[in-house]
Amino acid sequence: MANYTKTTIGNEGRTELHDKLALTGAEVSINQLPAGAGVPFVHSHKNNEEIYGIIAGEGKAVIDGEETLLTAGDWLRVAPAAKRQFSASANSGITYICIQVKENSLDGFTADDAVMD
Amino acid sequence: MANYTKTTIGNEGRTELHDKLALTGAEVSINQLPAGAGVPFVHSHKNNEEIYGIIAGEGKAVIDGEETLLTAGDWLRVAPAAKRQFSASANSGITYICIQVKENSLDGFTADDAVMD
Repeated sequence: MANYTKTTIGNEGRTELHDKLALTGAEVSINQLPAGAGVPFVHSHKNNEEIYGIIAGEGKAVIDGEETLLTAGDWLRVAPAAKRQFSASANSGITYICIQVKENSLDGFTADDAVMD
Repeated sequence: MANYTKTTIGNEGRTELHDKLALTGAEVSINQLPAGAGVPFVHSHKNNEEIYGIIAGEGKAVIDGEETLLTAGDWLRVAPAAKRQFSASANSGITYICIQVKENSLDGFTADDAVMD
C-alpha cells in the first residue's frame, strides 16, 4: 500500500474517510448537524467501540437513556452495546468526529509501537 | 465496562485519550504546535496505522522524505512503516488529531456493524 494517502474535506454534512483514505483499522467520519437537528435514529454496534470528539458547536448525546451535554473539546468513548443518539442544540449547530474501531483490537501503542529514526 | 466515558480537553500542547477514556481499539491524541515549532523527531510504527486530521492552522508533514502542506480539513492515513514528521508553519500554529489503530484490525463497520433500535 501507499506510504500515505490524503484527502481534504469540505463543508459536507457527513464525510466518511475509510474508502477515501484506504483505512484498515478504523472508519472515521466528520459530521455536521445544524441547530435543532439530530441523527434521526438510535443505534448501537455489534463489535465496534466509537470515539466521538466535538470540534465545534453544542449539542447533546443520549446514551442508554442518559443525557449528556456536549461542547467543543468534549471526547467520549461509547461501548459497542450502548444505545446512542446525537443532536445539535436548539441554538447552535455541532461538528463532531466519530471514530469506529473494533473493541479490544489495539495491542501496543505509542512507546510500545513507535520506532524512532 | 461503562456504557460510556467522557473527558474534556483543555489547551494543552498534547492530550492522550487512551487512558482517560479507557479506549480499547485506538489511541487518540490532540496536538497543538505553535508557529515555527515541529515534532523534534522522525518516527514510524511497528504495527499501527496512523490517521491525522488537521483541525486548525497550517503546517506540513514530511513522509518518507516527501513534503505535503497541511491546512484545516486535511486528513491523512500514514502506513506503519512510513517515516513521518509534522510541524507548524512559520507563521501559523497547527492543531491536529492523531488516531493510532492496529493495521488491518477493522472488520465490518457502519452498515455491517451497526444495529438500529
